[in-house]
Amino acid sequence: MAFADALADHPHKATFDLAELNRTVQACLDCSVACSVCADTDLARDPAGMADCIRRCLDCADICATTARILARPTPGGDAWERIVAACAAQCAECATECESHDHICCQQCAAACRACEQACQQLLAVAQKS
Amino acid sequence: MAFADALADHPHKATFDLAELNRTVQACLDCSVACSVCADTDLARDPAGMADCIRRCLDCADICATTARILARPTPGGDAWERIVAACAAQCAECATECESHDHICCQQCAAACRACEQACQQLLAVAQKS
Amino acid sequence: MAFADALADHPHKATFDLAELNRTVQACLDCSVACSVCADTDLARDPAGMADCIRRCLDCADICATTARILARPTPGGDAWERIVAACAAQCAECATECESHDHICCQQCAAACRACEQACQQLLAVAQKS
Amino acid sequence: MAFADALADHPHKATFDLAELNRTVQACLDCSVACSVCADTDLARDPAGMADCIRRCLDCADICATTARILARPTPGGDAWERIVAACAAQCAECATECESHDHICCQQCAAACRACEQACQQLLAVAQKS
Repeated sequence: MAFADALADHPHKATFDLAELNRTVQACLDCSVACSVCADTDLARDPAGMADCIRRCLDCADICATTARILARPTPGGDAWERIVAACAAQCAECATECESHDHICCQQCAAACRACEQACQQLLAVAQKS
Repeated sequence: MAFADALADHPHKATFDLAELNRTVQACLDCSVACSVCADTDLARDPAGMADCIRRCLDCADICATTARILARPTPGGDAWERIVAACAAQCAECATECESHDHICCQQCAAACRACEQACQQLLAVAQKS
Repeated sequence: MAFADALADHPHKATFDLAELNRTVQACLDCSVACSVCADTDLARDPAGMADCIRRCLDCADICATTARILARPTPGGDAWERIVAACAAQCAECATECESHDHICCQQCAAACRACEQACQQLLAVAQKS
Repeated sequence: MAFADALADHPHKATFDLAELNRTVQACLDCSVACSVCADTDLARDPAGMADCIRRCLDCADICATTARILARPTPGGDAWERIVAACAAQCAECATECESHDHICCQQCAAACRACEQACQQLLAVAQKS
């Protein structure tokens, strides 16, 4: 994977946990596309019944994509990024709760991606706050 | 402006403060492009001296664009959006502090856009928490 | 507007038409949020009847936001940006055609924003290809 | 991977080549983050010498992220998406050419991700135009 190798070349790599950072970026990307395809599938299959799910998925896809982007710029600076990661975890939890209530395969897959992303974000924050 | 008129047609318009929402979305968009052009100007003029400013601007452009997008979907749901708006305000404050320390016109304009966005986000949250 | 003033400070401002560039960036931003609010309004009002419109609006919101971002980095380089602007115009035309077929105020506003963005993109390309 | 499984649940899955679509979305995501980390690494290591590379990477990260998003909504509609995928391939080629001229590990990784994405986009278009 190009990202992990590029990250290992970063001049400030001693200031972040490379494995956790890589895991969180991948979880955010995975969640972002899982949410996008879940929204499109819901829209194609049952738009009226799934309107709430579509909406949650759209918001979650947006914040996950942005969080991945911001984490891919790991040079140390301020700490607003921690608020963004925490907000991403909160949005993932909200989307997961919605998707877990539906039996569709796309919702089950999306819920799993949301929970994985929520957990990765929380773990990254836990590591950051310890250091 | 197409957005404000479209928003006035929203079935759930009684559940949000249309004027505040519109103002915040505009402030986020304005801040997002001000940050993007500030980063590109810094990169063209003095990349070594302005590396920190470029980085802050890139992060701020991303979260502002996403916050505008999420606020443009105002149907009521969960409250993770409030965490996103608060994180956006925090990132704007961080970028404004950096840009305020530089005399370049692009930095001064960017700092003003960041402060306006920070304030709009905080005011939107204050209105939301009252209702 | 912070963006226009920041742009006027750009070291390479002699290489682009500042007024056209500013107009296109604003048209892209306006179209992006008009599409986002149109999709959310459709989803709240008539998701089954408006599923195609929602989908067109989501795609259009994405490419318009990205085009605004790329145009906000006007330092001269390659010419792939012209393909992106042309693709944005094509997507705006597609979304406009869909929205023009609906009477809802949000669709009419969105269609107008799409047509304005389509035209701004085409005009920017015409200016770029002349110079 | 949640995305591939969610995609396999899509009501319109017979209208697209699932394996090609999945491959292209993954290539776009991989390229988007490789570009983001390459830009941040350049900025931390040698901002003055790498300014052109940073700029190409920022544009490429944006269009790749948007292309992934649009491809994750595969319900058939218009054909503007093909213009977006073609523009993405063009931007990837431009960024790859720039990154291939630098010896840094991040640039070599980024160039590889750009070429893989360029090729995936072209192959997806070839498949789409045959059907």
